[in-house]
Amino acid sequence: MPLIQPRTLKGFRDYLPAAMIPRERIMETARQTFRSFGFAPIDTPTLEHLEILTGKGSEETDRQLYQFIDAGKRPVGMRFDLTVPLARFAAQHIGQLGTPFKRYQIAPVWRGENPQAGRYREFYQCDFDTIGTQSVLADIEAVTVIDALLRAIGIDAFTISINNRAILSGLLESLGLADKTTPILRSLDKLGKIGRELTAKEMVESAGITAEQSEQVLRLAECDGSADEVFAMLPSIIGDNQTAQDGATRLREIYEGAVASGVSPDRMTIDVSIARGLDYYTGVIFETTLDELPSIGSVCSGGRYDNLAGLYTKEHLPGIGASLGLDRLLAALETLQRLSSTSKPCPVFIPYFDKDHRDDYLRLATNLRRVGIGTEVYPEPRKLKAQLKYADAHGFAYAIIAGGDEWAGNRVQIKTLAEKTSQDIEYTHDAPEKLIAQLSSAGPASTL
Amino acid sequence: MPLIQPRTLKGFRDYLPAAMIPRERIMETARQTFRSFGFAPIDTPTLEHLEILTGKGSEETDRQLYQFIDAGKRPVGMRFDLTVPLARFAAQHIGQLGTPFKRYQIAPVWRGENPQAGRYREFYQCDFDTIGTQSVLADIEAVTVIDALLRAIGIDAFTISINNRAILSGLLESLGLADKTTPILRSLDKLGKIGRELTAKEMVESAGITAEQSEQVLRLAECDGSADEVFAMLPSIIGDNQTAQDGATRLREIYEGAVASGVSPDRMTIDVSIARGLDYYTGVIFETTLDELPSIGSVCSGGRYDNLAGLYTKEHLPGIGASLGLDRLLAALETLQRLSSTSKPCPVFIPYFDKDHRDDYLRLATNLRRVGIGTEVYPEPRKLKAQLKYADAHGFAYAIIAGGDEWAGNRVQIKTLAEKTSQDIEYTHDAPEKLIAQLSSAGPASTL
Repeated sequence: MPLIQPRTLKGFRDYLPAAMIPRERIMETARQTFRSFGFAPIDTPTLEHLEILTGKGSEETDRQLYQFIDAGKRPVGMRFDLTVPLARFAAQHIGQLGTPFKRYQIAPVWRGENPQAGRYREFYQCDFDTIGTQSVLADIEAVTVIDALLRAIGIDAFTISINNRAILSGLLESLGLADKTTPILRSLDKLGKIGRELTAKEMVESAGITAEQSEQVLRLAECDGSADEVFAMLPSIIGDNQTAQDGATRLREIYEGAVASGVSPDRMTIDVSIARGLDYYTGVIFETTLDELPSIGSVCSGGRYDNLAGLYTKEHLPGIGASLGLDRLLAALETLQRLSSTSKPCPVFIPYFDKDHRDDYLRLATNLRRVGIGTEVYPEPRKLKAQLKYADAHGFAYAIIAGGDEWAGNRVQIKTLAEKTSQDIEYTHDAPEKLIAQLSSAGPASTL
Repeated sequence: MPLIQPRTLKGFRDYLPAAMIPRERIMETARQTFRSFGFAPIDTPTLEHLEILTGKGSEETDRQLYQFIDAGKRPVGMRFDLTVPLARFAAQHIGQLGTPFKRYQIAPVWRGENPQAGRYREFYQCDFDTIGTQSVLADIEAVTVIDALLRAIGIDAFTISINNRAILSGLLESLGLADKTTPILRSLDKLGKIGRELTAKEMVESAGITAEQSEQVLRLAECDGSADEVFAMLPSIIGDNQTAQDGATRLREIYEGAVASGVSPDRMTIDVSIARGLDYYTGVIFETTLDELPSIGSVCSGGRYDNLAGLYTKEHLPGIGASLGLDRLLAALETLQRLSSTSKPCPVFIPYFDKDHRDDYLRLATNLRRVGIGTEVYPEPRKLKAQLKYADAHGFAYAIIAGGDEWAGNRVQIKTLAEKTSQDIEYTHDAPEKLIAQLSSAGPASTL
């Protein structure tokens, strides 16, 4: 029989260990962080009835949807995000779950995009949301979660940009432009890219507003400085519109609540120019950039929405949530050379080179695992040199070497592989304490 | 616009928090255990070229395959297990990965089965494999992993049944029945259900063997007792066939190696009657049953195979692996009432009932999270009674209650919710040590 060519579909990819180890570590860190705030895990099916999915995102997501007729003649689709399934889930179960409902979900989604650098047709989303409350405490908490999450991942230099969409909504309301929010936002989104003059021109042309109106909108978007400065400037820009004033008050409350919760003021900025898409968000919105690599864009974004599940239920479900951009974050960490290239998830390697001592190698490994030190034993009694080459290639931190002499002498040799240093240490199966203490006191073993 | 009915597809299900929390905990325990032996995580796409998937399982898996033509006119299918994708993955990447290659993968698979009690069309598999070695050490290690995994999950009473398919293969070889292995195995698989007489009858009829031959096969399958007894009896049953003798020797080596590795002999049994399916396994095979609920069947099974990826590559890749039956294990734990019914993944709840102290509640929560104690703050300043009802309903372990008097007096009240007991304890944001010590010394908070 001819061989079948082993290959993945266009736009899909395998994750080899060296790529998967940091992905898995970040996902587990996210779960731990979300849980520590009382967010609970949920899961929803990969496949949904097609009518649940279509018309919920943009025209683009409809076009990119993986859809087919299943064996039971049902039109079905693969989820393209975690928000639409959450809306369906909430509509279906909120009576049982009650509010407030806090959930996280980390799961793959599918979009038939034309593959380009770093974009795939299957990718993970990593979302947390608090549903069924309009309380500012939930908004404050969302900022706190983002801060805790990035720090837990090991990132120290980042900036959470915070805005409240109500400020611009109020301003447009007072200018009589509430019905032109969408084209105005679309133009404003380009401010950073095309500059003030072209943005103003586009706003006038595409939204059909006056030059004076565009000037007022741009004055708001350009309101810049420290948090205190922005909060001092805002009243004169937004005037006496109540929506905008309340929006500014709430924004200040979120900022101050986050500071009280322990988020460093250095890691937050009030940026009234960010809009984050067009229609979904109605209140506070966030973006998070890495200070060492701002060009990669936001790695954690979200905001408050007025009604999550209006298409599926009459129950009014306001909420707030954000999403960690896992792939973007990993790409950034790789660019910043902050990812280890190890392809092994445990620090210790035991070569099995004296075939008379197989059971001793196994027992040594068990002793280390029992105290939480991950340990691999090479499966075949090959030459030591070949086994150490394997250990180096895979990025183990330590090799513990013991031949007949060592076993007879109640000792083993610890080799620190990166530094190519060794030391002998006392060891018997019944008294492994010195070896454990030595491994635990060193760095990598305990962090892995 | 009329509402869309929120519903899941037939055979699919949502996981609500109370169901998802233990699932996630077991999956994380499995990851940690696999990693501690040097198994590395990988991931493969949900969708594969159809030709990769069809004809690889049984006729049944072909019929149950979710398949469709994608937008690029490619025939594609959703994976129905993790073994076929592993074979494709290994064929594609083994040159880069090298051998031995140890991987685990925990991921959903899809089969269009007719849904029945406890069976779904989307379910998780949780597999580990060592590829590219025939060493007995890898076989021993597989037993050790199963033992470590179940104990890490918190199960103490289980039995790993171990056999070596080579013993029966050798016996059939010596009886001149090697070409009848498949129908004989199919009959033998029913021994536990239909009994000796009917099994013998079926073997004679369906495999076309003599009554005497069936008697010899059954003598082997019924070889029963302690490990020592079985190893003592085997030689007389298998006679002088070399394959069978080598198989028995290796089986003993695996058993003794597992004991040396710390697996309790009480948790292993040598069961030469288990066969585990028909053609895939060629060497050692495992099944694992829960002593308190053997009727649910094996919760962790696997074995050694001779060549993983022969359909995709000429490279000979022998290996050994096993799979944790996550859904079956969870169903068993539920039947045994070993699952907590909490729908919250953190132990501490802080009611927010004095609206003048919102920032104090937030800061208290941050102080606890910083030392690893997961803490939720209720988002709205409602009445204390309503908030405690929420805490009870969700299964929090503790509520920390502080109103104006407590904050003024530098103390808080810890309420142990299940026992309905309370105690006052000193607390200020700058000196939270006593509260932390009190929470850490109690049970549930530190285990969650």
